[in-house]
Amino acid sequence: MTPRKIIIDTDPGQDDAVAILLALASPEEIDLLGITAVAGNVPLNLTAKNARMVCELANKPDVKVFAGCDRPLGRPLVTAEHVHGKTGLDGPTLPDPKMPLQEQHGVDYIIDTLRAEAPGTVTLCPLGPLTNIAMAFEKAPDIVEKVQEIVLMGGAYFEVGNITPAAEFNIYVDPQAAHIVFSSGAPITVMPLDVTHKALVTTPRNDAFRALNTPVGIAVAEMTDFFERFDKEKYGSAGAPLHDPCVTAYLIQPDLFSGRHINVEIETQSDLTMGMTVADWWGVTDRPANAMFMGDIDADGFFSLLTERLGRL
Amino acid sequence: MTPRKIIIDTDPGQDDAVAILLALASPEEIDLLGITAVAGNVPLNLTAKNARMVCELANKPDVKVFAGCDRPLGRPLVTAEHVHGKTGLDGPTLPDPKMPLQEQHGVDYIIDTLRAEAPGTVTLCPLGPLTNIAMAFEKAPDIVEKVQEIVLMGGAYFEVGNITPAAEFNIYVDPQAAHIVFSSGAPITVMPLDVTHKALVTTPRNDAFRALNTPVGIAVAEMTDFFERFDKEKYGSAGAPLHDPCVTAYLIQPDLFSGRHINVEIETQSDLTMGMTVADWWGVTDRPANAMFMGDIDADGFFSLLTERLGRL
Amino acid sequence: MTPRKIIIDTDPGQDDAVAILLALASPEEIDLLGITAVAGNVPLNLTAKNARMVCELANKPDVKVFAGCDRPLGRPLVTAEHVHGKTGLDGPTLPDPKMPLQEQHGVDYIIDTLRAEAPGTVTLCPLGPLTNIAMAFEKAPDIVEKVQEIVLMGGAYFEVGNITPAAEFNIYVDPQAAHIVFSSGAPITVMPLDVTHKALVTTPRNDAFRALNTPVGIAVAEMTDFFERFDKEKYGSAGAPLHDPCVTAYLIQPDLFSGRHINVEIETQSDLTMGMTVADWWGVTDRPANAMFMGDIDADGFFSLLTERLGRL
Amino acid sequence: MTPRKIIIDTDPGQDDAVAILLALASPEEIDLLGITAVAGNVPLNLTAKNARMVCELANKPDVKVFAGCDRPLGRPLVTAEHVHGKTGLDGPTLPDPKMPLQEQHGVDYIIDTLRAEAPGTVTLCPLGPLTNIAMAFEKAPDIVEKVQEIVLMGGAYFEVGNITPAAEFNIYVDPQAAHIVFSSGAPITVMPLDVTHKALVTTPRNDAFRALNTPVGIAVAEMTDFFERFDKEKYGSAGAPLHDPCVTAYLIQPDLFSGRHINVEIETQSDLTMGMTVADWWGVTDRPANAMFMGDIDADGFFSLLTERLGRL
Repeated sequence: MTPRKIIIDTDPGQDDAVAILLALASPEEIDLLGITAVAGNVPLNLTAKNARMVCELANKPDVKVFAGCDRPLGRPLVTAEHVHGKTGLDGPTLPDPKMPLQEQHGVDYIIDTLRAEAPGTVTLCPLGPLTNIAMAFEKAPDIVEKVQEIVLMGGAYFEVGNITPAAEFNIYVDPQAAHIVFSSGAPITVMPLDVTHKALVTTPRNDAFRALNTPVGIAVAEMTDFFERFDKEKYGSAGAPLHDPCVTAYLIQPDLFSGRHINVEIETQSDLTMGMTVADWWGVTDRPANAMFMGDIDADGFFSLLTERLGRL
Repeated sequence: MTPRKIIIDTDPGQDDAVAILLALASPEEIDLLGITAVAGNVPLNLTAKNARMVCELANKPDVKVFAGCDRPLGRPLVTAEHVHGKTGLDGPTLPDPKMPLQEQHGVDYIIDTLRAEAPGTVTLCPLGPLTNIAMAFEKAPDIVEKVQEIVLMGGAYFEVGNITPAAEFNIYVDPQAAHIVFSSGAPITVMPLDVTHKALVTTPRNDAFRALNTPVGIAVAEMTDFFERFDKEKYGSAGAPLHDPCVTAYLIQPDLFSGRHINVEIETQSDLTMGMTVADWWGVTDRPANAMFMGDIDADGFFSLLTERLGRL
Repeated sequence: MTPRKIIIDTDPGQDDAVAILLALASPEEIDLLGITAVAGNVPLNLTAKNARMVCELANKPDVKVFAGCDRPLGRPLVTAEHVHGKTGLDGPTLPDPKMPLQEQHGVDYIIDTLRAEAPGTVTLCPLGPLTNIAMAFEKAPDIVEKVQEIVLMGGAYFEVGNITPAAEFNIYVDPQAAHIVFSSGAPITVMPLDVTHKALVTTPRNDAFRALNTPVGIAVAEMTDFFERFDKEKYGSAGAPLHDPCVTAYLIQPDLFSGRHINVEIETQSDLTMGMTVADWWGVTDRPANAMFMGDIDADGFFSLLTERLGRL
Repeated sequence: MTPRKIIIDTDPGQDDAVAILLALASPEEIDLLGITAVAGNVPLNLTAKNARMVCELANKPDVKVFAGCDRPLGRPLVTAEHVHGKTGLDGPTLPDPKMPLQEQHGVDYIIDTLRAEAPGTVTLCPLGPLTNIAMAFEKAPDIVEKVQEIVLMGGAYFEVGNITPAAEFNIYVDPQAAHIVFSSGAPITVMPLDVTHKALVTTPRNDAFRALNTPVGIAVAEMTDFFERFDKEKYGSAGAPLHDPCVTAYLIQPDLFSGRHINVEIETQSDLTMGMTVADWWGVTDRPANAMFMGDIDADGFFSLLTERLGRL
């Protein structure tokens, strides 16, 4: 099997970091063309820096990292330092990156890269707000046909919301961008909170990361040590949810996940429910399906894969 | 203990019928002052008729039944014959009621009844759209202080919706009325789909109703036979959810239910999410609590109570 | 010609007062069945009092005045003391009313009165927020066919708004009620700001009122002296706009007004434009006509009529 | 005086064409850096072609013309062939352009051009939907400070709307883009329908264009002959409104226009009022001023200027 060509669009974030590490550890399945940073968990200057720190942690300083948009479409930026800490990567102590940030704008990198490839051959992996992807589709609609699949972390149905009672953070930060992406016609696979809240780093699972006894394993364990604090307090859950690695795990082992191919619309009109992913899970509307909306995960399989792969770095 | 004075506001509906029967079977805990009918599951002429048929089934032809509003506030009526059948009470064959419909408008009955009682002494039990209650509060705001508690079936959080992907039927039919009630300041207890989808009439439970071998027991079993079809097909669930009886069961045995005292807002602005009960279950907003939003039920205890009480009729 | 049977629904307000006086002065054209008060310019207790003061000023203490709703549907009451003064009738010194407020609720008075009349024979004249009318239609939809015409002051198209940049006061205070009324199917004639901002009490016109040298003439002149202050400062206009008397003048001499029979929808979803009367003046939509939306007035004819009639009291 | 550096962003459109011709005829006041085309009156391929046809008509084949976005942000494109004809420039017979379309994307041209200039030195002149400007601001927020002024045709207050009862075409097509621009902090001057509906090409005024007896004069007269049909039929007006030339006329002779420096918000939430420019003309809110909203024009002076300048080409 030829590895899938992917672009990761991200706002690291500890869980984004693990998602990137998993991709970098899996060259047989994943051909990471480049990484674009976006404002989200923390401002753009930090996410663009964090993405490079993670590449260097994985000893992959040649990955091309680009900065994209520093704000959502028509709304003020909302960030999540209360979850991820001031830097977005609180937990381990990682050195400042030496690898350069690419000069090209992330949006243009997405456009140029897709244009250079054959139709239906590039997978986009958004791990944060969908601003960069929406901007690329708006500026260059011809690239939509180059997309093989958009596999994104965002939204929720039965888990409803985290940043507000009705909305998940990534979609809430830029609902207009999400609306553009979900109505683009590109094939979409969604990893919502319904899935990611089942991907909990319990103590034994985090011990397994630490037991790798590598810089990557230890850093991931330390990130999780920090990151889990939030969900444990709020939800009383058994550990931190590893949201974003679900995206890259799906590329490697899709049968870890199951869901429904349904209609998903984005709420953009009401402040109260702004950014909700209204997923027609029960098929009560006649709106056409536009996304594979995942609902379940084989969590043990997921953590086995993750631990094994992180051990390769 | 003095029985609680209650008014049931209802749009029967098989599950409304069971809720009413449970109240009528429990005079030690419940003093049913009267029943007001509202348009919802089926049009008003049918709900006003069905309410009386249920009273006669219970051999209580002296209960006062009033017709209220025949449409929601500013929206066309949506009904649910696809769930409840053409009559709203499909299943058993019940005779047409002989007892009269009271002449007074249901809204005025609510107002006059509350005005005649002491502050904080009457419990309102809405089992359908909240039109009548909202109209009474709007016409006579002085009655709000007479309310001990509003215990209503409606809304959803983790179960999200049934009539649309984002809204439960009762609230969806009249979101403006729900908004008026939820912002009235009266103490509110909500039985959402989160609870009622756990109150499933499995085959053994329905057999227990039937085994009562009384007109009531048999009729309830036959209603459930009809009613369960819908949820079994849609959700693949083990039986029909007995939504509305949760309300009257709570009056008799409140410890069957558990939940959180939180803020609940009603979506009234967006067509996509219209009628959603945005419940701040995780406390992520600073909006003040205005409702006890139930999340769990002791289903076995609930069905034990129900069977035992129905057996008394 | 038989005089038209009308009910005035009002929140006086100086201009409401003049509208009532004009009706009371015109028994040949207008048969005033009763007056219902609503919360609007000032709270209900004041509008119910002011309506009676105006009747007594006209020496008509036998008019039946009823109190209706004290708040809009699902929104907090917004009042306009900045225009009308603390009492709503600032300007003249009028004695407290001796005539009683009727005991019946204004909404029920509307319902009972319409039910007692033949189809298409009663004209409703709302001069304030449409709460009472909407409540009556919601509680008793059968009365809609009894309505000959609803002639109301409210809304704006080219004048857009006064209380907000997009909304006129009466509609803004209760947009849901306005939506119910405008979608009721009853024949509606609208006197919007487009008309009423042309009905300006210039100094010579006010002098003509004062020159009547009657208690009514002097009181109207004093009301206008107070009332004009607001519009002169805000709009730099030549005098106070006599909004509400346009409604009763239309009943007496309809050819003073001209307009278009068009579709008018009420904005109820967006905070920014809440309460706007979206009038399809140019016929750019295919929405069906539901209102005669006036656009022009013969102001000189209007003031001649008004002065002549006020002189009769 | 140094001529002002401007970029015209446009969707020609007969009136866009005249606006461009006026700019090209006025090198002493206007330094036209380039033209970016956007989808609006007609699709992008036509607006990008029409812009070049106009430059060639003016004998200015060296003007750089760029194609920008072919659709609004998150909404389907709405066009106005019913006004402008199938080509967007119906009326005269103009040859296909020989001058090339520039390869760079219009959005990037705007960004690069602004970045190369000093702060506060470039004026943007949007004559169509604001998609390109919003995209440039979103992709490169640093360029906002380079803007001297945005002088745009769009919106309405007392004229309310043309494409819908509440919205003017340019803003309606892309309300999200308009919202981004109006909240950008850049100095904005608006030429709304309130102004442009007073810039009517009466027969004598069109005769004056024709009497120039030049290719430009004749083409403008023929465009107007076509274009006026729509407004004459709809509004019964005396001729076609020359919307867009108000923008370039303002750059040459600003005292032709008067208005108020006020707050203008864009309606983006409600379908009914979508795209409305809610202008606080009367100062009834406390929202801060963000635009100079013009309300009046010296129409004779405007047409004198226009005729004189077109005669120079």
